[in-house]
Amino acid sequence: MFETATATLDWIGVIVFTVTGALAASRKEMDFVGFAVLGTATGIGGGTLRDLLLGLPVFWTVQPAYLLTCLLVAGLVFFTAHIPQSRYRYLLWLDALGLALFAVAGAEKALQAGASPLVVIVMGVVTATFGGVIRDLLGGESPVILSRDIYASAAGAGAAAFAILTLLDAPREFALGFGFVVALLVRAASLRFGLTLPRYRPRAGIPYH
Amino acid sequence: MFETATATLDWIGVIVFTVTGALAASRKEMDFVGFAVLGTATGIGGGTLRDLLLGLPVFWTVQPAYLLTCLLVAGLVFFTAHIPQSRYRYLLWLDALGLALFAVAGAEKALQAGASPLVVIVMGVVTATFGGVIRDLLGGESPVILSRDIYASAAGAGAAAFAILTLLDAPREFALGFGFVVALLVRAASLRFGLTLPRYRPRAGIPYH
Amino acid sequence: MFETATATLDWIGVIVFTVTGALAASRKEMDFVGFAVLGTATGIGGGTLRDLLLGLPVFWTVQPAYLLTCLLVAGLVFFTAHIPQSRYRYLLWLDALGLALFAVAGAEKALQAGASPLVVIVMGVVTATFGGVIRDLLGGESPVILSRDIYASAAGAGAAAFAILTLLDAPREFALGFGFVVALLVRAASLRFGLTLPRYRPRAGIPYH
Repeated sequence: MFETATATLDWIGVIVFTVTGALAASRKEMDFVGFAVLGTATGIGGGTLRDLLLGLPVFWTVQPAYLLTCLLVAGLVFFTAHIPQSRYRYLLWLDALGLALFAVAGAEKALQAGASPLVVIVMGVVTATFGGVIRDLLGGESPVILSRDIYASAAGAGAAAFAILTLLDAPREFALGFGFVVALLVRAASLRFGLTLPRYRPRAGIPYH
Repeated sequence: MFETATATLDWIGVIVFTVTGALAASRKEMDFVGFAVLGTATGIGGGTLRDLLLGLPVFWTVQPAYLLTCLLVAGLVFFTAHIPQSRYRYLLWLDALGLALFAVAGAEKALQAGASPLVVIVMGVVTATFGGVIRDLLGGESPVILSRDIYASAAGAGAAAFAILTLLDAPREFALGFGFVVALLVRAASLRFGLTLPRYRPRAGIPYH
Repeated sequence: MFETATATLDWIGVIVFTVTGALAASRKEMDFVGFAVLGTATGIGGGTLRDLLLGLPVFWTVQPAYLLTCLLVAGLVFFTAHIPQSRYRYLLWLDALGLALFAVAGAEKALQAGASPLVVIVMGVVTATFGGVIRDLLGGESPVILSRDIYASAAGAGAAAFAILTLLDAPREFALGFGFVVALLVRAASLRFGLTLPRYRPRAGIPYH
């Protein structure tokens, strides 16, 4: 049942991020191949980099059903993108859902590969954010990970909560659920209340004698 | 003889894409290092990502002759780029040749690594297109893979034809040749007749009750 | 003692490049997460790509102290960036130091992995330059590696000097030191005297009969 739980997290995350990549393609009025490329790269990009960095087999090369799903979802968006566009607010919440799912699913996979706590947290952030980085770079936009919003930090908070709870020998399902809720709440707080982290402000240099 | 056939596909593809990368450097009036970096990254980028994703040794780390060839070709273009620039039309056809070569050579390598048919097709597309993606990102241009032309789909069609024929137990050489011709013809049809795929058009949202 | 020498090269290089990435974040007035992402990606990016290409475990996944260092350095810059900004000239020399350190440290790691001389040199260049490529792409700037300055060639010259000396059976410490000095001097000559390599100039095409 635990296997099912983490696999479910992963599947929903892939689908949600594929939708956001395909919607980026719709904003640029691409053809279906553009939808498929941007959608798939966004959906599987984070997990791909995580697996490469951890030296694991890349998940979709051994489970091609992920690829097929990305292509089907991209195709679905190609024919229905006018619906979510009128509901952009819902999309942002879906994206927050994907971010929280991938933060704990990525951290869990790193933990199972024997990574140390800091690497576990970084892998949660990488899995949750890199798909979006690819989407933004390919689409010629500034990466959302570097935007004013609280985004990568939400993933980091969720992955850190998960890592700490597993260090304390909490049940794995509880740690996953708690980390997921932390990531989602932090991201939701930023979306709902416009919270941002303090930004660097240039100051006058200290005079050099 | 079969080994020689696939190796030849690969070599010609590397050389052709190195030329396109070096010509991108010439349009930006770079120095030789720019030619070498853009040329080599374009020539070996697709095969490098394919090998990383499949968990294989990266081909040019075990066969450095590929690297040497990229550097020599980039140097040749540095001193002769004025010739192909006046023949830009020929360059587009050379690029189509490289695309078709890499589509089947990449798919074949994935097949030999035991990948499933969908992964074989995706690896054909990745090998054929990723070098150009790197070239365009490094050169600060919008990736050709997302342009209006039929590009990634031509590689996908060739790799799919190859994958289907091998599933039907066709002789490997025939499958390679047929896939190559399919990719080349699809790309040629786009170049010659300006064919494009239908693009997504925004529609009015369905009213939300 | 030799182990200590190469590890020291690596550590100083990571710190120096993390500083340059965090300073790029300060120029864009990012929050701390932006500093951490840009700083870390710049500090460990080159070594990460080198390890992936060579099929080695990625260094910071087995030695997370590197990650922790990047985060601490990025935090330090977040609170003190006004100091180096007023001393930009010092930063360029720090960056040249990192370039020279990574050129020989990257080449040395490739040599220990059994790579051939040309691959050893390319890995020196990749390690020394790819962190900066990531920094510039994420920050939306044109990659410094393709700029007018002598940059990648300085790394290549240092790595080549190292590779040639090891082929001649010179003591490893001497080869490292000599390669480091070569890379630093070439880069310094470009910084100090504004040296550049000759650039490609478009010429009139040869008439086609």
